[in-house]
Formats: sequence, structure tokens, C-alpha cells
Amino acid sequence: MKVTCVQENLNKALIHSSRIISVRSSLPILDNILVSTDQGRLKISATDLELGINYWIGAKIEKDGSIAIPSRLITEFISNIKEDKINISVDNNNVLIEGEKYNATIKGVNAEDFPSIPDISEEYTFTVTSRDLMNAINQVAFAAAADNTRPILSGIFFKIEKDILKIVATDSYRLAEEKVKITKNEKTNKSFIVPTRTINEVGKILKDAGEKVDISYDENQILFNFGSIHLVSRLIDGQYPNYEQIIPAEFENEVIVDKQELFNVCKVASLFARESANSIKVNVSFEKGKEKDEKGILSIIGQGVQVGESVSKIPVKSKGKEIEVSFNAKYILDVLSAIPEKNVEIKFSGANSAGLIKGEGKNDYLYIIMPLRN
Amino acid sequence: MKVTCVQENLNKALIHSSRIISVRSSLPILDNILVSTDQGRLKISATDLELGINYWIGAKIEKDGSIAIPSRLITEFISNIKEDKINISVDNNNVLIEGEKYNATIKGVNAEDFPSIPDISEEYTFTVTSRDLMNAINQVAFAAAADNTRPILSGIFFKIEKDILKIVATDSYRLAEEKVKITKNEKTNKSFIVPTRTINEVGKILKDAGEKVDISYDENQILFNFGSIHLVSRLIDGQYPNYEQIIPAEFENEVIVDKQELFNVCKVASLFARESANSIKVNVSFEKGKEKDEKGILSIIGQGVQVGESVSKIPVKSKGKEIEVSFNAKYILDVLSAIPEKNVEIKFSGANSAGLIKGEGKNDYLYIIMPLRN
Repeated sequence: MKVTCVQENLNKALIHSSRIISVRSSLPILDNILVSTDQGRLKISATDLELGINYWIGAKIEKDGSIAIPSRLITEFISNIKEDKINISVDNNNVLIEGEKYNATIKGVNAEDFPSIPDISEEYTFTVTSRDLMNAINQVAFAAAADNTRPILSGIFFKIEKDILKIVATDSYRLAEEKVKITKNEKTNKSFIVPTRTINEVGKILKDAGEKVDISYDENQILFNFGSIHLVSRLIDGQYPNYEQIIPAEFENEVIVDKQELFNVCKVASLFARESANSIKVNVSFEKGKEKDEKGILSIIGQGVQVGESVSKIPVKSKGKEIEVSFNAKYILDVLSAIPEKNVEIKFSGANSAGLIKGEGKNDYLYIIMPLRN
Repeated sequence: MKVTCVQENLNKALIHSSRIISVRSSLPILDNILVSTDQGRLKISATDLELGINYWIGAKIEKDGSIAIPSRLITEFISNIKEDKINISVDNNNVLIEGEKYNATIKGVNAEDFPSIPDISEEYTFTVTSRDLMNAINQVAFAAAADNTRPILSGIFFKIEKDILKIVATDSYRLAEEKVKITKNEKTNKSFIVPTRTINEVGKILKDAGEKVDISYDENQILFNFGSIHLVSRLIDGQYPNYEQIIPAEFENEVIVDKQELFNVCKVASLFARESANSIKVNVSFEKGKEKDEKGILSIIGQGVQVGESVSKIPVKSKGKEIEVSFNAKYILDVLSAIPEKNVEIKFSGANSAGLIKGEGKNDYLYIIMPLRN
């Protein structure tokens, strides 16, 4: 192999690819990145056998070939050198990298030992915009279960309904759903569960991606096609719970509140709620006789027998009944960090029923929190 | 106690004071911050019995008193609320904190149980500027021993010689010394060893401090007086090694090189030097026949039997003999991160002798690195 490429492009490809590599890989060869020539371009590949990436960059190819190179060393080396263009050549598994100021020889591994990135039969494909997918990932993925006790809940649910893709996550205590418009679709109505790790990598790649993403799937795998970057992942096997039944049909009170202000008071209340498993009280009342003017007061209360208590009050626009309900402060803070809008709408359905939070005026997103018992 | 103060001032005082508290304190009372009125001001105090702080802020005092308050809760609470002024009052060890939006009751502890911050007999005092002391701490403290196997080397050596304060640190593999001008002194020639932790706290407080610092000491303790902040620390007992003997008297080669460029090439070389305990080769040669023009080439080489090697070359101004010597890359990277000047001077005294690094043209600072054997 003998090629010339731009350091900055190779650097980006290596940073995205090296993240795919597992810190505890099952086979030593998987600690490597595969660098190979592919029809006039340079292809950078990595896999942990569940998730794989192919990343193509432009290059001047003098001689075709391929080599596996230790991921950590090549990634750190390329990110630390200051060069415009670099030459890469392989001689007897030694990888020679030459720039103007920096020269290195890195011991490579025979490319034949590298497992192939799993391929997908591209039977079904649909397309969404990068921006919509990014927004959905940011506002949904954090709600998936962090541990693996119920593997299905540790994934993100994709549900295609005609030209709408619903992206859903829940850990059974809270649930987030965003609807994304499908701009092109071959087949209607299908659903599958994508590992959260895959979705987080998609989110990172989207920052560098073009306007649209093609998503292909078969029974076992999903391919996110960003053009010159392909991410292939296994799907999680199983039946996603029928989550729609937990979304309350009716609400007793609705509040509109400044997101940052609500974040601050919930943060303060949570300091006092450590011994009560982060449970804070949310109380909506009205200024005396001002129910019809919608002049409400939102009080957030954190209490701990050993430490004391905090009470913070925010004047809000509110309509409906007065209400008091307890939630896990973390679940409120999480969603407020993810919502981009300045104001949020909170809907309450009673002291023992779920609450709903979303950006003001936003109808394609919802976040449900289950109440805590006092 | 009943007082009113500015949230921002109290916040700063709590942030600096809470850092003094040990994560593993020997007495539960030491997890608290002592808040007390003191001659028309509010005094915030904390100690771990080795290092103590008294931090005074302005306040409107309605009723004198004092109370110990759990450090983590009060610090996080005050830093998270958005208020202008806050009222603090104490009722039966309950601390009531009231702002416009935020109200809290925190359970306090009787102030009588709080140990007094160790006092110092202010027999000897000298004064330095905050800027000089800050520079010295930044360029010296990192060279102290990180572990406690030789307690003396885990401290910073202060040596007063008439109107010069030498600040020195060494872990026996490298040594840093900076000379600071004393602007006012009562007694000449004295030395003592200050714990590195104390010096690091001094460095953090200096960012918020005025123009000068008064330093007082007795046999066992040192007081850094920043005006409205006092930091009192024990000294480390023992005899500091006679470090001046390791500073080479003569050099065989001198190089002037761009600091950032040298940092980059040493960083790259260190990637290849992991299996050789970070040992990198530094080589100075001349362009053929250009010795008299001082046209040198500085080569930095990292090698690992298992991984390969990197060679980076920088054209430099150099005079003296050609030379090759091995150093620990970390020790070079550390000092380059600390030096503020754009260019550095490196002086070599041979393959088996120490090297010296300092900012170009700087005569009150030096950094010595011992060579490694190949």
C-alpha cells in the first residue's frame, strides 16, 4: 500500500472509528483499525463485532493494499502531529508514516486476520434529515435504562408508521418519545430496537454529517448511511413494551414555566433530597382568587430529616386544579437539560399519576415521569 | 445570629473554604464550615487540623453569633441559588437562609464543638507580590514528589536569602527553582518546607487576591495573609537536601526552540515510549558545516520494540557540541506546560549529565532534569 492523504481528514476518520473499539475486546485483532484502499479512496474500518464502522476519505493512491494498525497509537499519533499532507506506505507489515516534520514507523498486523464488518441486505431503506434525527437522539436517548437487567429497555425503540418515525426510550420510570418525519420510505409499518450505544455513536457522527441519513434494516441489523460513513449495528431481539398506555389521556393542571428557572430550583431541592432517593415535591397553587387569571405559584420542595429542607417558589402561568405530586428530581433535571426550547409545559394528572413535560408549543415530543409515593 | 450578606461574596468564601475540608476527616465536626460574626464582618472558617482558612466578608450584622454548617450542603446550596442578597439567621441550631425566591432550613451544629484554627505567633513576616508568588507556584510546585515516601520531597522548599525568596521543588529526578523578590522583610536567612497541598491552595486563592501577600512563620507553622483571607498551615519537619550541587556548572550545548513545537514533538515521541518508561532520545546535530552559523537540528526520537518508532526534527538555533541524551518525556512536557515564555532555552551537559530548561532570557528560573541511561 502507498497513499497520500490530508492529515485532518484522516484524523476525523480515526477519532470516529477508534470509539467503536471496545476497551475489553474479545480478540486482540479488534484493537486495530483496518486501513485499506477502496476504489480510489482510503477506507478506515473498526468493529467490536456488534457495531462496525466504514469511513471513506479522499486519498491519492499509488499502490493498493490494506493493513491493520493498533488503534490507540495511530489515532493519538495522527491527532498530535501538525502536518498538511501525510504519506502512508506499508513494507512487510511496517507502516511508514511521513510528513514534513514527523516520521514514524508503526508495527502493523496482517489485514487478512481482520474480521469483515457485518454486511446488511439493504432490502428496506428510509430517509430522515440529519437535523431531525439529531434532535430526537438528544431528547430521547438519555431516558433508556442505564443497566442491562432488561436488555430491551437498554435500547431505543424505532417505530415506523407510514411517513413518521417514532423514536422512544424508557427505563420504566420515565419515557421519552419524539416523532421524526420520514422524507423517503420504501415500506410502511415496521419496528425494531437499536442499542443505545449505537444511537450515541450516530449522534456523534451526525455533527460531521451531511443533510440526510439513509437508514436500512433487515431482521437482525441496521445500517446508518451518512454517505462516506457507514455505521452497521446488530438490533436487540425482543418485544418492546406497549408504552403508549402509560401516557395519560387527561390532565388536571397545566403550567408554563421558564426552563432554566425550573432547572435551578429543582437542582437546589435535590441537594436536600439525597436521603429520600431524590424525591422532591412539586406543588401548584394559585394566588388567592386568581385562578381565572391563571396566576399560579409553582413550589419545589426538597426535604431530608437529617439535613433540613428547601422551598423555592416561581410565579407561573397555570390553569386547572391545585395539585401536589412527588417526582425524582433527576428525571426532571435530565429532560430540562435536553429540551432546546426556552419555556416548558408541564401537565399534571394527579398525585398518583404520571406527569408530562415538553417544550412549549412542541407537539411532536413528549416526556412522561411516573410519580413517587410520599 | 442574624446577618445579611451578598450571595456572590458568600459563595466565593464557601468555595475556597470547602476545599480545605478533607474528604476523609478524622472528626465529624470537621465536615462543617464555621460561620461566625467577627467585629462587624462575617467570618467563614474551615480546617483539617493541618491546614486552616479564615475568610472574612462584609455583612450587615443584626445579631452576633456563630454556627457550624455541613460544608457540602451549604456550599452547593449557595452556589446554585440566584439571589442578590441573602439573610441568614440561627434558631436553636437551625440555620434559616432566606432570599427572594429560595428559602432553606439547614440543620447546623453547635459552634463550640468546632476546633479553633491554629494560631501563629507572627514573630517574622515578609512580603512578596501576588503576581511573583503565583508565577513561582505555577512553575515550581509540579516538580515536587507526588507520593509521600520521602515527606520532605513532597513539600515545597522556601529559602529566604536577604531580599530573595527561593521557591524550590524536586522529586530527585527533576528540580525546579524560582527566585522571588521580597518587597519587605524583617529577618534575613531562614528556610522551611511547606506542604504542596498548602501551596496549591495558595495558588487558587491568589487568583482572587490583592497585589501583595504577607507571609509569617514560626518554628511549626506558616500564615499566608491575603488581607481578608488567612491561610494557616503546619510546616514539614526536616532538612531539605542540598539541591544546589546537582545544578551543572558548565554546559556543552545550548539550544533555543519554540516551546509549542517542542511540546508537540515530545508528546508524539512519548506515544512510542510507553514500554520504555517514557524514555525519549534528544539529539542535537548541525547542518553540515553550519556549526558556526548556529544552524542546528533538534531531533526527538521515541522507540518501542513492540510498537515502532517516531523521529521528529526541528530546525533550531544552537551552539556548542553535537549531543545525544535520553530524558523522561513527561518531565519535559510538564515544564513546557508551566513556562509562560514563547521560546525555551535548553542547555545540555552531556549524555550522562543533567539538562537545564528555562524560558528564553529568564534568569530567575531554572528546571533541571536528570538523564536516563540507554
